[in-house]
Amino acid sequence: MLLSGGLDSATALAVARHRGFEAHCLSVDYGQRHREELSASRRVAQALGASSHRVVRVGLSGFGGSALTDRAIPVPKDRTERARSASIPVTYVPARNTVMLSLALAWAEVVGARDVFVGVNAIDYSGYPDCRPEFLRAFERLARVATKAGVEGARFRIHAPLLRLSKAGIVRLGTRLRVPYGITTSCYDPRGGRACGRCDACQLRRKGFEESGVPDPTRYARPAARP
Amino acid sequence: MLLSGGLDSATALAVARHRGFEAHCLSVDYGQRHREELSASRRVAQALGASSHRVVRVGLSGFGGSALTDRAIPVPKDRTERARSASIPVTYVPARNTVMLSLALAWAEVVGARDVFVGVNAIDYSGYPDCRPEFLRAFERLARVATKAGVEGARFRIHAPLLRLSKAGIVRLGTRLRVPYGITTSCYDPRGGRACGRCDACQLRRKGFEESGVPDPTRYARPAARP
Repeated sequence: MLLSGGLDSATALAVARHRGFEAHCLSVDYGQRHREELSASRRVAQALGASSHRVVRVGLSGFGGSALTDRAIPVPKDRTERARSASIPVTYVPARNTVMLSLALAWAEVVGARDVFVGVNAIDYSGYPDCRPEFLRAFERLARVATKAGVEGARFRIHAPLLRLSKAGIVRLGTRLRVPYGITTSCYDPRGGRACGRCDACQLRRKGFEESGVPDPTRYARPAARP
Repeated sequence: MLLSGGLDSATALAVARHRGFEAHCLSVDYGQRHREELSASRRVAQALGASSHRVVRVGLSGFGGSALTDRAIPVPKDRTERARSASIPVTYVPARNTVMLSLALAWAEVVGARDVFVGVNAIDYSGYPDCRPEFLRAFERLARVATKAGVEGARFRIHAPLLRLSKAGIVRLGTRLRVPYGITTSCYDPRGGRACGRCDACQLRRKGFEESGVPDPTRYARPAARP
């Protein structure tokens, strides 16, 4: 299970646990600016009864090329829906999900798991190429030929239970499964324990709670803008 | 270009340079026991005129599961050809080439490269599933759907110019291209600047030089066993 500490992967973990899976969680420290993610992932793994949790470091930040790892590129604020959907966002980290799933595959092979859960979502994040179903299917095909386990007949499955849910749908699903959303974090640019309330991730999260009718436990630095 | 500091990737780099490519090299520090690899990779990149060279760290060693990263698993010595070809070796690192190619893909996307060179070889290392042509083709298909560049029409190619060469063939090719093999290292278990002469990698390397008729510049701790 790839666990980021955010709302989506916490919900995906709850789904995996609800389906009866024992969960071995992996968080990837790829030099993201928002370090709060990693401590949130520890809290989430514990709260949802994961059997194990590892943090693996990957020096992706040395590559640059994304607003999430490169301090020279500002995290966009107050972007409109239209601007967000028009192109691949600057918060895209080159080949990030490919790197993350590769690490998850390695970890799965070591612990003997065949089912890999990820919280990716093709609706609200459709700008990211590596959040699409065709990416996940291509990765499953790769896993079959890439691993010792695959050669010996194992069939790896990449589960993306949130793939076609809206953010509001994810919040409703997780609320039914008793995900403690107050301990998750989504903000790309948190300060002093509060979410900025302005970045893409905050806006999506806030909108998701609003549309779901579930009270939003997030502590924002700024109140929501009036529509 | 994925560069390990070994004989194979040095030869693959020489091929890429010979074909006129500007080379941006990436070495992956995955916690391999044989740290000598990384300094060798720096020497090789410089000697063969690479335009840039990065070392990216990945905490794979925390996963265990391989003799190359896990100190609890001994590196095998004096294994026979038959034993080696019979199964996947314990020196297999779970999903290693998947992780490495993912990182190379990320780096390629950042530098704007579309051609990724790797020194993998399907003949002498046929025990590793992620050294096979079907793995490389599956990765190319993945790269097309995984990246911003791919979505925008770029076609990534994974070049494996050594794929079907024997070790002797690789040595002959590299010698023609003036690869300074004395600065490369292959040993899984080097001590005091000398190759052990006994591990799988040393045996393959030594045999490759013997069969190629090229003098072997490697400093071994033990003389070659008599056949």
